[in-house]
Amino acid sequence: MRDVAIIGVGMIPFGRRDEDTLVDMLAYASMKALDDAGVDAVDALYVANMGGGVIQRQTAIASALVDRLSLLPAAADLVENGPASGGSAVKNGVLAVASGYYDVVLVAGGEKMREVTGWRATDFVATLTHPQTEYPYGITLPGMAGMFTRLYMEKYGVTREMLVEIAIKNQTMGALNPYAHVEMMITKEGVMDSPHSVVNNPPGATPLHLYDMCPVSDGAAALILCPLDRVKELTKNVPVIVAGFGQATDTHTLAEREDPTDLKAVTLAAQQAFERAKMKPEDISVAELHDAFTILEIAESEHVGFFKKGEGGKAVLAGKTKLGGQLPINVSGGLKARGHPVGATGVAQIVELTWQLRHELPKERQVKGAKAGFSINFGGFGNNVVAFVLKRGEK
Amino acid sequence: MRDVAIIGVGMIPFGRRDEDTLVDMLAYASMKALDDAGVDAVDALYVANMGGGVIQRQTAIASALVDRLSLLPAAADLVENGPASGGSAVKNGVLAVASGYYDVVLVAGGEKMREVTGWRATDFVATLTHPQTEYPYGITLPGMAGMFTRLYMEKYGVTREMLVEIAIKNQTMGALNPYAHVEMMITKEGVMDSPHSVVNNPPGATPLHLYDMCPVSDGAAALILCPLDRVKELTKNVPVIVAGFGQATDTHTLAEREDPTDLKAVTLAAQQAFERAKMKPEDISVAELHDAFTILEIAESEHVGFFKKGEGGKAVLAGKTKLGGQLPINVSGGLKARGHPVGATGVAQIVELTWQLRHELPKERQVKGAKAGFSINFGGFGNNVVAFVLKRGEK
Repeated sequence: MRDVAIIGVGMIPFGRRDEDTLVDMLAYASMKALDDAGVDAVDALYVANMGGGVIQRQTAIASALVDRLSLLPAAADLVENGPASGGSAVKNGVLAVASGYYDVVLVAGGEKMREVTGWRATDFVATLTHPQTEYPYGITLPGMAGMFTRLYMEKYGVTREMLVEIAIKNQTMGALNPYAHVEMMITKEGVMDSPHSVVNNPPGATPLHLYDMCPVSDGAAALILCPLDRVKELTKNVPVIVAGFGQATDTHTLAEREDPTDLKAVTLAAQQAFERAKMKPEDISVAELHDAFTILEIAESEHVGFFKKGEGGKAVLAGKTKLGGQLPINVSGGLKARGHPVGATGVAQIVELTWQLRHELPKERQVKGAKAGFSINFGGFGNNVVAFVLKRGEK
Repeated sequence: MRDVAIIGVGMIPFGRRDEDTLVDMLAYASMKALDDAGVDAVDALYVANMGGGVIQRQTAIASALVDRLSLLPAAADLVENGPASGGSAVKNGVLAVASGYYDVVLVAGGEKMREVTGWRATDFVATLTHPQTEYPYGITLPGMAGMFTRLYMEKYGVTREMLVEIAIKNQTMGALNPYAHVEMMITKEGVMDSPHSVVNNPPGATPLHLYDMCPVSDGAAALILCPLDRVKELTKNVPVIVAGFGQATDTHTLAEREDPTDLKAVTLAAQQAFERAKMKPEDISVAELHDAFTILEIAESEHVGFFKKGEGGKAVLAGKTKLGGQLPINVSGGLKARGHPVGATGVAQIVELTWQLRHELPKERQVKGAKAGFSINFGGFGNNVVAFVLKRGEK
């Protein structure tokens, strides 16, 4: 079991990228990561993508990418795990290096979702629901999130004000992130209390409104992994160490969970990641949580141990999760503002944390002196979750 | 880097399985593998599948399977690499165990292809071709194979008689394999020389005829991996050791290869597998090659070093690759007769080799005293190839 480091990262601006194919986007992000690391050959490549088959009707995308990047004859596989495909691909890249079989590994995540917008995008994501007990009844991910939100609000006293505060925080930070899809700042008056808010922020899946949900985005992100003991030979960058990771699953069908507010896979994945890293939630300087819906940022921050159950929403109102607060969460803007091209998200989270841990971001986005980062990539409605703990290494 | 062993295997009969969903098939094969090993929990699960998105419009199949098998909260990912998805999933399972992070790993490969038959099946497989330079021009995998066959025949003196001999050999063996899709025996007179052969064995992609091509099949296969040093504690089976593996890529577009008869990725993947195993082609007792088209059995047997270039076809005519010959190839019937449910194939090859190396097959199918096995799983048209070298271990 070798220690594994991230030595290069790259991302392309998320949003609407009509002019690029899926492989184009993966290639652009990969070239940035290769350039950033300063390497021009890899031993293996992993692609994270969920919708190539459903949306683009394209398979063998890893074979296409390895050739497009002139990285032949490197091994190339695609990893799919719904919206946690990115996390899973990074995990398998880490295993490939840790095993001793591969040294330099590229992981690229991407999704071209804007070919299916509106209900078609929601329907694409719903291809991950249970094909007999969920999909035929019309339940979608926003629908599940709405029901989850109602239960979580009742059980833990989460208020709509807390949710709105997350939307505002993440869109404010997203407006500072050149890679973010959503550049528009919002105010509490505009989305919550004014007569205009009914028009501007209509209910989507009650109690969730439009601004509680992530947009439908195109995008890609990539990173380069290598054994920690080869970092100095391969790159000039400060290495970021993959201190720990975790992955856990829960029932495919949401209705089968004894307590649907209990995101067991989130708790377990985080526990595994912290145990392997020999670290605790208190050691984390900056976190990227999977806020596809605002409620998830609160629920995840509690399930992974940053706050006690019922305290996550209060922490948001108290400004504890803002930049400059006790634990800045989604300084990138999160899925809410950066966007959520599903296959890209898990990789993009690690790219953002790498920038944070290398202290390379502009002052208005940098968590000062960040030493350790944490991410949750949330697959299905919490049925397959991947967590990472990253540490700033020595140059 | 830990040594990895296969301690359980399972397969369901390939063919037309209208009554089963894709997840049903994966679950049945997995339950057989778990039963065979004698384990009832795993740390991680890998699914190999190519067409879930394109054919079934279903994603997150690994999350569905892990729940269906009551293996929660095990980590679960899907691996896709076109027709070599099975080989890639097994490889990633091996890396997961070798890394030291996971001990007991289930790998299940499956495909439900009969929902799209005829040209639609060919069109589904063509989703792996280049979306700009190949697919729009109507080239399909049989088309590529036809052109490849013509060139290979001209360059290396392969004859139609040699191809027909492979079809007969593999269908004869398939008729003895209860897991094979094609149960019909064929004769040289029936498919090559008689007036009836024009009707019974029409040209498909000249010079390939109907019986040179694998059928469109549903099916699934699964296996259980663990560290070699935990075998005795976990199972009563003779372990089969993953002595080596290799994976290599080639140009996505067939037309870009300097010499299209040179399957570079096959050669490289085999070299890697033999080097890691510290073994040579001469050490192999039984091989499963990827005979989606009869020509590939000859071409692969030469590229991996079993025979010199130009000698593979002669070896077939001389009976060297039959059961009882110098090196029995595709005793299972191969893709030609067992069938080629694409995501299942790479796993099914390893399952067959495991039975061979455990000496468990009926006399008419068993390679006597088999000590080492070899497989080639051929993705794209040779653009992403996975090879394995397996060894019989000590009980």
